[in-house]
Amino acid sequence: MAIKVPYRVNFYDTDAMAVVHHSNYIRWFEIGRVEYLRSIGITLDDLMEDGYVFPITEVSAKYRSPARFDDELTIETIATALTKAKMAFDYRITDKEGKVLVTGHTQNVFTSRETGQIVRLPAKYYEKLEKAMEAEVAS
Amino acid sequence: MAIKVPYRVNFYDTDAMAVVHHSNYIRWFEIGRVEYLRSIGITLDDLMEDGYVFPITEVSAKYRSPARFDDELTIETIATALTKAKMAFDYRITDKEGKVLVTGHTQNVFTSRETGQIVRLPAKYYEKLEKAMEAEVAS
Amino acid sequence: MAIKVPYRVNFYDTDAMAVVHHSNYIRWFEIGRVEYLRSIGITLDDLMEDGYVFPITEVSAKYRSPARFDDELTIETIATALTKAKMAFDYRITDKEGKVLVTGHTQNVFTSRETGQIVRLPAKYYEKLEKAMEAEVAS
Amino acid sequence: MAIKVPYRVNFYDTDAMAVVHHSNYIRWFEIGRVEYLRSIGITLDDLMEDGYVFPITEVSAKYRSPARFDDELTIETIATALTKAKMAFDYRITDKEGKVLVTGHTQNVFTSRETGQIVRLPAKYYEKLEKAMEAEVAS
Repeated sequence: MAIKVPYRVNFYDTDAMAVVHHSNYIRWFEIGRVEYLRSIGITLDDLMEDGYVFPITEVSAKYRSPARFDDELTIETIATALTKAKMAFDYRITDKEGKVLVTGHTQNVFTSRETGQIVRLPAKYYEKLEKAMEAEVAS
Repeated sequence: MAIKVPYRVNFYDTDAMAVVHHSNYIRWFEIGRVEYLRSIGITLDDLMEDGYVFPITEVSAKYRSPARFDDELTIETIATALTKAKMAFDYRITDKEGKVLVTGHTQNVFTSRETGQIVRLPAKYYEKLEKAMEAEVAS
Repeated sequence: MAIKVPYRVNFYDTDAMAVVHHSNYIRWFEIGRVEYLRSIGITLDDLMEDGYVFPITEVSAKYRSPARFDDELTIETIATALTKAKMAFDYRITDKEGKVLVTGHTQNVFTSRETGQIVRLPAKYYEKLEKAMEAEVAS
Repeated sequence: MAIKVPYRVNFYDTDAMAVVHHSNYIRWFEIGRVEYLRSIGITLDDLMEDGYVFPITEVSAKYRSPARFDDELTIETIATALTKAKMAFDYRITDKEGKVLVTGHTQNVFTSRETGQIVRLPAKYYEKLEKAMEAEVAS
């Protein structure tokens, strides 16, 4: 199920073309991802305290239409893969009328904070991811 | 020919994982793109004064290895398509030892500042792009 | 009356000290300022369409205590001067328990978009500012 | 002696008023500060490895004239106080013709990474700061 987060465009998000700078949507994907994980009971702080970091390994975005200052957007996030070793998400940024402005995709891997090596998450986290993924597939 | 721009990582580029936030590489691709265009005699200011804007339509990046505060990086940019209607570039961000940390790709289209419609660039600009593209293909 | 805007700290707001980078609070003051003006019936878009820009001429901040990823903050904004020629605001960023993390102050002037010269706002805008300032003084 | 760092304005540094967003100068002060410390033999990485962090406690800036995309700026930094417990710096951002666009001031304190408490730097660092401060006063 898509997790939706509202985002109102700030003045500092714009550039000299008077539209949102394209790098900011990549940041907003992160807002969606964090909220998705929170919705299934996982916080990045918990992961970090347990010694895991979750660097992005891939990101892509397609820009269809620009957002402008003060626009009321929605960041929609769905998981497309949640495994012991990696997470993948799809995103849609829509405007007030539901028009899709930007779509995107990211992939993260779990790594050990100490060694920097890719690791597999323990059951404590994995069970939540697995359950969420089953719900996504069923929906 | 790849255009190379040095970039030293600032403290404000880092995040709480003590590495460069992944969205910043997308910004650095822009530094490379601007410098590539300057090297063939095109400045964004000229384009904008002539009524053209050049929104990004696609961006993608693969993150292999993290950069950290104070790292001395190089942003390498090559054109993969330069036409009347669009530009595409490939990027590599490397560290001091030449290790590739991040690769990426972007696509821009030219649009009219006034109408927002996709337009074709006049010969004044296009000839420079065409010549640069021929040089890329030959190299 | 202080206008309050909630802000949850994003991961991209943090730096390698694992706290919010100090420059971001300056951005959040802008969120407060925009919301204050909206609350008295003025939007930056209207001002810009009428040919006014409102560059910041002064900013200052005192940092008492750091905010961290995921903290639920409140941006409080009050006007300290609203005249035909300039606006000044005070800010407080507080955490969930009401503890003041950062205080700040900004000053803007109104300038003509075309000439870049400082201008005086027309009655259409000034009356709203004057009324708001009277309310601030009375409170 | 003022440490000078060149900075060319990136497109992503601009906002919808087609000038540099005011928060970015605060970031560029950091570039100057880091370079000043490097010039006297102190790197933030060394400080952090030794368990010190150096949060900003105060920042202020006065904006006289806007910088625009592609402008070639210089960040000038001088120390106004370098003690065991804190550092203070003044900044000037100038354009190609030497015109002062922005002036600023910051203050940092040294704190323990572990406890968050304000600490005094050991001689290893302090002697370098003291020597630099003497040179500033003499100049």
